[in-house]
Amino acid sequence: MLENNGFTFESLHTGMSAEFSKTITETDIVNFAGISGDFNPVHINEEFARKTRFEGRIAHGMLSAAFISTVLGTRLPGPGCIYVSQTLKFKAPVRIGDTVTAHVEISDMNIEKSFVTMKTICLVGDKTVIDGEAVLKVPRREMPAKEH
Amino acid sequence: MLENNGFTFESLHTGMSAEFSKTITETDIVNFAGISGDFNPVHINEEFARKTRFEGRIAHGMLSAAFISTVLGTRLPGPGCIYVSQTLKFKAPVRIGDTVTAHVEISDMNIEKSFVTMKTICLVGDKTVIDGEAVLKVPRREMPAKEH
Repeated sequence: MLENNGFTFESLHTGMSAEFSKTITETDIVNFAGISGDFNPVHINEEFARKTRFEGRIAHGMLSAAFISTVLGTRLPGPGCIYVSQTLKFKAPVRIGDTVTAHVEISDMNIEKSFVTMKTICLVGDKTVIDGEAVLKVPRREMPAKEH
Repeated sequence: MLENNGFTFESLHTGMSAEFSKTITETDIVNFAGISGDFNPVHINEEFARKTRFEGRIAHGMLSAAFISTVLGTRLPGPGCIYVSQTLKFKAPVRIGDTVTAHVEISDMNIEKSFVTMKTICLVGDKTVIDGEAVLKVPRREMPAKEH
């Protein structure tokens, strides 16, 4: 009787993709610092951040990474899937005002385990800011109960 | 002239560790959903979540993962380091009221690249909820300028 608006394993195939985009605001960074406790000055102290190689505040890497989880958990495969693992390579900084697009695409499927491997990237314009891979366990189609 | 309250590469050695703990509240989950856009019902809909294998709402995996970033960016190696990569294996769900401890420990150092590899885990009590590894680039000690 599980409500599940996400995809079942049987309805997925390699090459399927989805994305989620959001503009990073100062408010997001302030709130993310408050929730996570990550008050690294490179995120919340403009005077400090200006003297670093980034020349100004940058968003928490995990904030952009969270958008990957958003696509996976709400769009593809969607509700009902179990997050097994995620790799993240932080390639470039994200700044206030940047619009981050998290793009996920199914690269492999393991029938025995009901595991789906997804290529996961975050882009700002054409630039990859995060590169990585996710593995999810996706529910199978429910079989109708046999009558006795 | 870089202000840097974090460790320099030269002052680190394998085996050094640090941690950060936080109790997960309902407020954190609500706010994290708002910032990330991740309104997967398993996080924000108790009636849906109760019918899943989790039998109730669970926290976003990336919320606990963010605590790893918090330790790395604020304690060890601390401000000034660059987040290169992170792997995350989600081993068990985290619920409202759980206290998550993110523990990081230096497992390897690469002198040529100024890279430090850290074993990163998140615990609830004795149970590992996230297991993984981070790589960071850590600033070198600044050499005093030579006189001409």
